[in-house]
Amino acid sequence: MMIPTKKYAKAAKIAPKGFDTANEFFEFVFNDKEIIWMGQNTNHLHKENQIRDAMLSCVESREYAKYPPPEGFPELKKLILKDLNLEDSDILITAGGTESLYLCMNDILEPHNNVITCDPGYLIIDNFASRFANEVRSVPIYSSENGYKLTPELVRANMDENTKIVVLIDPLNPLGSSYTEEEMKEFAEIAEENDIYLLHDITYKDFARKHFLAADYAPDHAITIYSFSKICGMAGLRIGSIIGASNIISSVRTILINDLGTNLIAQAGAIAALKSKDDWIKEVITTTRNNQKIIKEVVDEIPGAFIPVYPSEGNMLAIDLKGTGINPTEMVEYLLERKIFVRQGTYTSNRFGDNYFRVSFSIPEEQVRTFVKEFRKAIDFLRKN
Amino acid sequence: MMIPTKKYAKAAKIAPKGFDTANEFFEFVFNDKEIIWMGQNTNHLHKENQIRDAMLSCVESREYAKYPPPEGFPELKKLILKDLNLEDSDILITAGGTESLYLCMNDILEPHNNVITCDPGYLIIDNFASRFANEVRSVPIYSSENGYKLTPELVRANMDENTKIVVLIDPLNPLGSSYTEEEMKEFAEIAEENDIYLLHDITYKDFARKHFLAADYAPDHAITIYSFSKICGMAGLRIGSIIGASNIISSVRTILINDLGTNLIAQAGAIAALKSKDDWIKEVITTTRNNQKIIKEVVDEIPGAFIPVYPSEGNMLAIDLKGTGINPTEMVEYLLERKIFVRQGTYTSNRFGDNYFRVSFSIPEEQVRTFVKEFRKAIDFLRKN
Ligand SMILES: Cc1ncc(COP(=O)(O)O)c(C=O)c1O
Ligand SMILES: Cc1ncc(COP(=O)(O)O)c(C=O)c1O
Repeated sequence: MMIPTKKYAKAAKIAPKGFDTANEFFEFVFNDKEIIWMGQNTNHLHKENQIRDAMLSCVESREYAKYPPPEGFPELKKLILKDLNLEDSDILITAGGTESLYLCMNDILEPHNNVITCDPGYLIIDNFASRFANEVRSVPIYSSENGYKLTPELVRANMDENTKIVVLIDPLNPLGSSYTEEEMKEFAEIAEENDIYLLHDITYKDFARKHFLAADYAPDHAITIYSFSKICGMAGLRIGSIIGASNIISSVRTILINDLGTNLIAQAGAIAALKSKDDWIKEVITTTRNNQKIIKEVVDEIPGAFIPVYPSEGNMLAIDLKGTGINPTEMVEYLLERKIFVRQGTYTSNRFGDNYFRVSFSIPEEQVRTFVKEFRKAIDFLRKN
Repeated sequence: MMIPTKKYAKAAKIAPKGFDTANEFFEFVFNDKEIIWMGQNTNHLHKENQIRDAMLSCVESREYAKYPPPEGFPELKKLILKDLNLEDSDILITAGGTESLYLCMNDILEPHNNVITCDPGYLIIDNFASRFANEVRSVPIYSSENGYKLTPELVRANMDENTKIVVLIDPLNPLGSSYTEEEMKEFAEIAEENDIYLLHDITYKDFARKHFLAADYAPDHAITIYSFSKICGMAGLRIGSIIGASNIISSVRTILINDLGTNLIAQAGAIAALKSKDDWIKEVITTTRNNQKIIKEVVDEIPGAFIPVYPSEGNMLAIDLKGTGINPTEMVEYLLERKIFVRQGTYTSNRFGDNYFRVSFSIPEEQVRTFVKEFRKAIDFLRKN
């Protein structure tokens, strides 16, 4: 049993007030069909479309009696590589970006290594890193001085000869910051010069206006983590992939867990998602950007509240309440009572969790309007209390 | 990167003649709809039923935009515990027995421990154990003297103070041997006396005429690995669970990988499978047992061939060809050319792989009749060559 894990696991598994376990809480929000779902960066904008139809056909065929090819259907592998323009890379299909992140840490890290992540960030990554590395260096980045993101300077200042992985979540959950081409080139230089891997988590890539792949600048030192959960609206299907140079992926092959493959209905949906992306992405993006503007306008009216990164390049943003004197956890609870699910800052930060809460906005516009109305009321109510 | 893994991974990932990689081979068999699928102990006897219907409804609802509760839907957890009559145990839903096996090894083993498995057996278990333990003691059991299974005597003879897990695959893949109540009681005694865990893999339980749960005899020293792949005909959905005393499962919670849960369509199917089990299990079992008899009759006619364990308590059995002078791998290749997918012995044994090949028979009877016809011809053909 590995001790360092446990302290991270705690942070990631918060049970909100009124619930004994995180699982109970998630069951509750899942089953209440009226809840406005702004708490997990999921995407609720997809309608009846080719993704759904492909999965229906797959279920109807009853091919699920068989095991799928263990590494994933070759068609899906090819489509993902084409989507990224990384046709020369190698790839494995996984049960979500989550499994990919774990495999990456398991494969690359030796016990004396350290890993550079950022705070705020996506804490399960720190958790996974802590299981295999000597140290996780979670660099505080919640400051306008460094643009609310990890910078090449911050990486240089925090690395040493045992640093083996630099985690770049891009766009960043929870803030929505993203990297410029210049920054990516510098990260690539650092990685190549020091034989360090850039773990490039591009879960929110397609929401960004511009995006630069680490793999294009450091092909032998980048590992790309890919997810169908967000832009494709497929979170509950648990499907993603891990992409890298062939020597990296060959090594990952030796430590695979899903020896009998990944859910084949999810794979059918993923294939359809990539084939039909051009048909639906524009509407998803337009609605998401417009929703973000609606939120921004309301936050701007509230003295003491601000959005650290605007526009967010993801489908989520943080709303900082420090200057209002309101505790973000109280805000989250207030909104949940009104059937709006948003996330407390402590879910994505060990240091700054009391500053902000996070909302995702790839949901219908009317739901965002309900949110801003209730958020305004919440500010008035919680200020008085 | 963990070295000991690699030698096991090799054995488990055989690419048959004519294929560059195992993945290519599996893609080939998956996509050829004419192939008779007797190679992975999957179950092709389910028709249009409640399992399929529940998954269709789940896809139609588009609830897959959301993440499911991370540990699994409480309804599913309850149904599994009820199915086993283990209502006092704790449980986590996983992406198949495979993920459960990995979590068990990861959670329990310390680097100085050793694990007792059996050969023949299910080699990915040895692989997972080798990632966390000092030694995997794979006990040769391919002998009528010990009933082609691990016995309490063999466990005692192979254990020492560093033994932490004894793996009981029951019924055993590939042979179909299973444990009596007396044997299970003795295993339980050994486990309790020596503070060892019984890892009880019950993937094929429902095919057995009688079955005894280790958890009933050693509640604090048994971990039960549960799968929906076989009896429920849901292999491609990748769903299972891990069950144990609450202190064990609480510990497993701290090293979970699927932090955002398991595919929710698979969970919907699994819930329907358990609710409707009484409606379909009898037909599945009757056909499977009858198929087994058909195979037995043909093998009995062939001088030098025999079935080590008959009747098999699973949906698979081994056919030993040693006395015929035929190499089982050639048999597997011969049958594959005739569109019958069976498995070479090396897939489930490091020591005895040249003695036998494995066939599973939860398929329509007419397909079994095709198999026995081609098998007879193969014997004639391969004997001459
Ligand atoms: C940065 C980041 N990476 C990975 C994931 C997990 O993605 P998946 O659903 O593909 O496991 C998330 C989910 O919120 C995320 O925010
Ligand atoms: C003994 C045994 N355990 C576990 C598994 C894997 O089951 P699952 O499909 O649930 O991962 C198999 C599959 O063949 C098996 O034979």
